[in-house]
This record gives sequence, structure tokens and C-alpha cells, in this order.
Amino acid sequence: MSADAMEFPDGHGCLHGVGLGPGDPDLLTMRAVAIVQASPVIAFFAKKGARGHGRTIVDRWLDPEKRELPLIYPVTIEIPFQHPDYVAALSRFYEDSSALIAAHLTDGRDVALLCEGDPLFYGSFMHIYVRLKSAFRISICPGVTGMSGCWTAAGEPIAWGDDILTVLPGTLSRDALISRLIATDAAVIMKLGRNFAKVKAALAQAGLLARAIYVERGAMADQKIMPLRDKSDDEAPYFSMIIVPGRGRRP
Amino acid sequence: MSADAMEFPDGHGCLHGVGLGPGDPDLLTMRAVAIVQASPVIAFFAKKGARGHGRTIVDRWLDPEKRELPLIYPVTIEIPFQHPDYVAALSRFYEDSSALIAAHLTDGRDVALLCEGDPLFYGSFMHIYVRLKSAFRISICPGVTGMSGCWTAAGEPIAWGDDILTVLPGTLSRDALISRLIATDAAVIMKLGRNFAKVKAALAQAGLLARAIYVERGAMADQKIMPLRDKSDDEAPYFSMIIVPGRGRRP
Repeated sequence: MSADAMEFPDGHGCLHGVGLGPGDPDLLTMRAVAIVQASPVIAFFAKKGARGHGRTIVDRWLDPEKRELPLIYPVTIEIPFQHPDYVAALSRFYEDSSALIAAHLTDGRDVALLCEGDPLFYGSFMHIYVRLKSAFRISICPGVTGMSGCWTAAGEPIAWGDDILTVLPGTLSRDALISRLIATDAAVIMKLGRNFAKVKAALAQAGLLARAIYVERGAMADQKIMPLRDKSDDEAPYFSMIIVPGRGRRP
Repeated sequence: MSADAMEFPDGHGCLHGVGLGPGDPDLLTMRAVAIVQASPVIAFFAKKGARGHGRTIVDRWLDPEKRELPLIYPVTIEIPFQHPDYVAALSRFYEDSSALIAAHLTDGRDVALLCEGDPLFYGSFMHIYVRLKSAFRISICPGVTGMSGCWTAAGEPIAWGDDILTVLPGTLSRDALISRLIATDAAVIMKLGRNFAKVKAALAQAGLLARAIYVERGAMADQKIMPLRDKSDDEAPYFSMIIVPGRGRRP
């Protein structure tokens, strides 16, 4: 889980990438809680003007004396992610954030960087990890993914026996979505937002509309779950997914 | 996470499907530990003559007075799973196991059914769930998947930005594997065992051999991790996977 400590300078702190799970504080692992409680510095990503969803999840487990290091995204959805300004802004942000974390590590303080879901599964943590892993000891604590939270909230087994499961971003083109949906047994579609209508059309084209389930804020207090065909509008917030449960071998 | 308690008879116990994560006892969630400690009956799947891997994972959290209900698979890999005898034996086993659990629930005792990984992701729990869910209250606690344990053990971010991730069983035909591998950005291939040589050939054909990583017993004490091309034999036990990390957007 961590590189050999002997490779790195004595006296430096360790960066912990801590998976927090899908949103319910009780879905942190025992190790995640222990790391959060033992680390002198708690770093977390947040949108401008918001407290940070990850930071809120750990409220129950945090001592108020803890040193906090919020890392505020310069942009989220204001600029399309293909735009060079988006790439440049994010790249600068990850560089600056890595430097802030590195300063604590160099001074000998361990840093717990909070990661919603699992740190190595589409996580912002990964952008810090690739920048710091050759210079500092890094330990990663896996977490329950947001998609597990969603299929659990829906009470739907996602994959059986020899089912193929495909995780698709809603940002794909309609044709790319259709071809992947036709070639899979089960699917999870993330990053809905403004892609919702396109994703719904692709599911219909692939003959999967009747099996698709819409899950909003799965495993959070205000979750909303319904058959996709019953959803009458095209609004889908960031914390929403569509799942298509598999139908594989069931002795 | 659970159906409305009012639908079910008063005085009946609740069945908890408890995700245990990939194998390290510290990767149980806070909720999983609380459920295991509070449930009067602990049920778990095991192979004939073995203690049960799930049961071993919770050793640290179990009080020795607990009532245990081992559910012993009648067959595992002795008969091919397409064979009607396999299907009949497994079907009978899940029926019998459901009846044993139902007897405790009817007597008012909660049962925690241990599930390695996440209960609704290729889990044996699902076969009990579909048999009992109309008659008893069932609550499911998601867990860290075995595949998260593997990519964390390898220190490899699995999916970035808009990567497509495909989870494939090694039981697929060589051609089916190749076509899915070509159409994805990242992959996890499970159920290696006797399929190992075929899977390796499919990865080579899809041009992915150089990116593939073999992980055996990820997140367990005796884990083994290596680039797939460096693995010189075709032996791959049940608790092994191949991961192909994605290479998506990295500002």
C-alpha cells in the first residue's frame, strides 16, 4: 500500500490518500478513521464558496484542533474541460496544491488528503499522487466507491456470474455510448449533468431503457431512486448515476 | 438501504448483507464492524474443509460467544458451471442456506451474512437476497471491492477523467475478450485460474500486454504484484486479477 519508507528522506511526513466512501460517515473504513484521527493535517478539495463535501463527511471523526488545508478548485464546470484554459487552470491548481502539501510533508507532518469514494477511481487525489510519489512516502487507503453506494441504495445486484460490467462517463458521444451499452451485460453511467438527455436516448437505442435505474445522491440522506423511464425531466446533478443491473447466472 | 420495516411481520429479525472489503480487517467499514458486533448470528460461506475466508477476516471484530452459521458450498470448481449438475447443486445449496437463515429471522434473531468485497458486486449474497427479500427485512452494507484492493496494492490509478472502465470475467472467449479490451480505456479481468493463458493472449492481441499488471491476493498479507509480461508461468489462483490502468485526462 505504500512505497518502501527507506527510499525517502528521514523526518519527512507521509501523505495518506484516504477513501471516504459514498457519503455516509459510517461507510468510512476502520483504517480511514484511524488515519484521519492520527494525521496532524487534513487536506481536502472544495469548490469555491463551499465547505467541501469530503470535509463534511468526516465531521463526526475530526477533532476540532486539527489543522485544515482546503484546496479550492479554480474552476469546475464554468469552462468546458477540453478548453486549453481549463487544462491550464487545473494543471496550475494541482501544482500549487502539491506544493502546499509538500511543505507540510517536508516539515515532518503527515497529511491526510480526503477523497470521496475510492482514491484511485476517478479521484482528484490521483493528480496529487503522480506529482508527489517520487519525492514522498504515500500510502493509499481504498474506499467504497460512489457507484457501490448507488447500487446498494437501489437494492440492485449489479453483476452476476460472468457478467461484463462497463463504467461509462456520460461525456461520451451518443454513438460511443450505444456501442458500449450493446456490448455489455451491466453498466454504470456517471457524469450525467448536461449529458442526461443524450445518455437516456442512447440507453433507449440500446434497448436498455426499461432496465435502467436513476440514482441521485445514493447513500446520502436525501437520496432519490427511480426507474429511468419514470423520470420526467432532464435534470441530473453531479452526484447522480444511472445503473443497468446485469442478469447473469443465477442458480 | 433497507425496505420499509412496516411491510414485514413484527418480531422477525433483519438480514444484514455485510461487505467485508478485500481482505484486510481494517478495511471493514465502521458500519460493517458495528453490524457484525451487534448481530446474534454470523453466517458465512465457506468451501468444504476450509474455515471460510470471510469468517477469518472478521476474527478481530468477533466476540467468541457469537452463534455461527457456516454455509458450505457443495461444489466449487470440481464441475464446470455450465453443467446442469452444477446448477442443480448450487440452486439446492442456496435454497437450503436461505432456509437456515430464514429460521433464525423467523425466531426474531438478526443475521449478519458476511460478504467478501461488496455484497452486490458478483457476491454469493445476491443468491440469498433474491430468495428472501420479499419475506424479510434486508439491509445491505456496501464494502470496498476486491478490485479496489488490487489497484490500491499496485499503487495504480485505474481510471482518469473520461476513461471507460470494463470489468471482464476471464471465462469469456478469447474473441469476446479481445473485442471488449479494444473498446475500453481501462480494464479489470477477474476469474483468472485456468483462463490465465487465454486472457494473457487476448491482452497481447489487443496491444495491452505492456500495460497490464498482475495482482495476486491484493490487500492481503502475502500479496504478489508484477507486470504481466514478467510473469513466467500460467498459474493464477482464485484471488488474482489483471488490471490495465487507464491513461485519461491528466491536467
